[in-house]
Amino acid sequence: MAVGPASLPNFNAIPGLRLGTACAGIKKPDHRDLVVMELAAGSSVAGVFTRNAFCAAPVTLCKQHMKAEAPGYLLINTGNANAGTGDQGMQDAIACCEALASNTSASRETVLPFSTGVIGEKLPVEKIQQGIPKALSVLSEEGWEDAAWGIMTTDTRPKGATRILEFQGQQIRISGISKGAGMICPNMATMLAYIATDATVDQSDLQQLLSEAADQSFNRITIDGDTSTNDSCMLIATGQGVKVERDGELWPLFSEAVSELLLELAQAIVRDGEGATKFITVSVEQAINVEEALQTAYAIAHSPLVKTALFASDPNWGRILAVVGRAGIENLDIDGLQIYLDDVCIVDKGGRADSYREELGQAVMDREEIQIRVLLNRGNACEQVWTTDLSHDYVSINADYRT
Amino acid sequence: MAVGPASLPNFNAIPGLRLGTACAGIKKPDHRDLVVMELAAGSSVAGVFTRNAFCAAPVTLCKQHMKAEAPGYLLINTGNANAGTGDQGMQDAIACCEALASNTSASRETVLPFSTGVIGEKLPVEKIQQGIPKALSVLSEEGWEDAAWGIMTTDTRPKGATRILEFQGQQIRISGISKGAGMICPNMATMLAYIATDATVDQSDLQQLLSEAADQSFNRITIDGDTSTNDSCMLIATGQGVKVERDGELWPLFSEAVSELLLELAQAIVRDGEGATKFITVSVEQAINVEEALQTAYAIAHSPLVKTALFASDPNWGRILAVVGRAGIENLDIDGLQIYLDDVCIVDKGGRADSYREELGQAVMDREEIQIRVLLNRGNACEQVWTTDLSHDYVSINADYRT
Repeated sequence: MAVGPASLPNFNAIPGLRLGTACAGIKKPDHRDLVVMELAAGSSVAGVFTRNAFCAAPVTLCKQHMKAEAPGYLLINTGNANAGTGDQGMQDAIACCEALASNTSASRETVLPFSTGVIGEKLPVEKIQQGIPKALSVLSEEGWEDAAWGIMTTDTRPKGATRILEFQGQQIRISGISKGAGMICPNMATMLAYIATDATVDQSDLQQLLSEAADQSFNRITIDGDTSTNDSCMLIATGQGVKVERDGELWPLFSEAVSELLLELAQAIVRDGEGATKFITVSVEQAINVEEALQTAYAIAHSPLVKTALFASDPNWGRILAVVGRAGIENLDIDGLQIYLDDVCIVDKGGRADSYREELGQAVMDREEIQIRVLLNRGNACEQVWTTDLSHDYVSINADYRT
Repeated sequence: MAVGPASLPNFNAIPGLRLGTACAGIKKPDHRDLVVMELAAGSSVAGVFTRNAFCAAPVTLCKQHMKAEAPGYLLINTGNANAGTGDQGMQDAIACCEALASNTSASRETVLPFSTGVIGEKLPVEKIQQGIPKALSVLSEEGWEDAAWGIMTTDTRPKGATRILEFQGQQIRISGISKGAGMICPNMATMLAYIATDATVDQSDLQQLLSEAADQSFNRITIDGDTSTNDSCMLIATGQGVKVERDGELWPLFSEAVSELLLELAQAIVRDGEGATKFITVSVEQAINVEEALQTAYAIAHSPLVKTALFASDPNWGRILAVVGRAGIENLDIDGLQIYLDDVCIVDKGGRADSYREELGQAVMDREEIQIRVLLNRGNACEQVWTTDLSHDYVSINADYRT
């Protein structure tokens, strides 16, 4: 199950970035499971990573390599997360980077490794070593679509976004892919995203942009509240095109375009959430501060009772009201609170809105995309998070995954 | 589905407390849905209530009445929570108390009201008014079993516990009933518990005992993380028997017995959790403080990924490890951490324990009652919470409830 149309865009190639995808047989034969990205000299690379204390070996190594040298390659495998694998896992991650380095006469530290798949099983290093030359042999600026397929795990469809920014006769190209499904399912080491632009951007500007944009996109989506050992989101500027500086005229346009693309990729992960039949936007407005708005939004987005009601298309306003009541807001004035389903007011003055009728709520609930909007009447802070319903398929997928 | 044996105990009657149960037809005909408890003069009553900001009208009124007069009656209806009902809800709760008062020549403030059932629908006051004389006509010290049935909503079975404490030839009797199922399903206004003893206890001592005991029992159970608008737990001392004082010799025995009985009633709610097929004890040991231990325990107990793995009897240690990693513990030393399933060590030194074999984990997972034990290696604090797995039946029950 997934929500909304499934088609990939026609990716705009990014000069300075070539992608190669291969079948390395990591878990299944003839399944695209290995992706190499080759970056032109002079590229800037920014990254944000999981905050899970048990971060996987490739995440640790990737951060080390980014500090040591300018990145030249990204190496991504699916089918095995190389997480919870101890010292052996680190040796295996190093061996994979060395294999790519020796095939390309680069140094090992220029290779950034990423893994996603089952936790706790030894990485099949030999298969990856054998797959690398195959991936290198098909490197192409046109390789985005194959790569979008190559990074998938339990995803039911590939995810990509692309755009061209035009400014005074100049063009900036931005393309990206993501994978996720269960967000963030530790067992699948789920969330990966790679976004590239041909713009020329200083690394520190790029990192700041990515951190801010990821915070408003990948850090605002939730399917089951779990976060992975392997989550990574990388932003690459190949430096082949227009120079964009933080104080410059182009920056607002550029940063907005990158942020929008990240949000599109992040929302695509929710739309393909495990067992998802609905795409839910939870908006909390009029909060005293951001923390309170997020706390309330996540309480709603994580409530199994709200999520099962959404699955049942049941306009069960009592469940939403009760979750807001337990969200931990100090001195909440329930009489001032309002809750909407899309444009239908369901809760007003501490109870069901006088104007509310079941058929109005039902009409909204029958939609595939629904906004739950909570007005706290306390301040000006406003935050949104995106999530899914909780379906039988979610239980099936996660109860049956390893068997 | 429910875990463990379903039988009610042979309740010990509590001198000074009579119970009467009737069919008032609130939601269904010929269904026990109204319970009256009559307290002897001189009884002490303590209560703990939901912290949900949207607490229901009867909860608000109950607290007011407890402050105003010594309680003489408890009036409990199922089928309707009288929550999210605004001013009308308060008028209706008052009307029910008045009806009981006028039938018994008591004052309205001596009646403590409790409601559980659907949220947001007007309380059928007339049916309750008509049911009260029926319940009063069957008041009996032997009425515990009927009352245990009478307070049920989506529960699949009644819940009760009872014991007699013997001390130097003296006896103290304690009996209690609870209801819960989905803990704490806002739509069912779920968790109610009534415990009574014939001991003579000052109200302030009784309140302190209840607060402490509820904190270690009803506040340590979770099925889906939601909390209700109507949760109430009442402890009654009828004063017909032995005097027990906080500084006295009997207090440790008495308080331990009451605490054990509360825990038994609380765990019975988990065992009958919506769709439950497993009873899970999550123990977090060697934490720096209680907050950290609870934070970690609840992160595990609320993780849909862990709960679906439990439902599948899948010894998926990677999911437990990843949840501990995201539980928000500052500077967690993953190398010092250990995780056990019952007595099987599954995680050691940041990864799968060397001694672990899948068949050992599987043998534990095949059990109906399982302990997940996390040793943080940071301090001496230790906390336990109790929960269930997440099954297809949970989704079915909560997706289909209103239809």
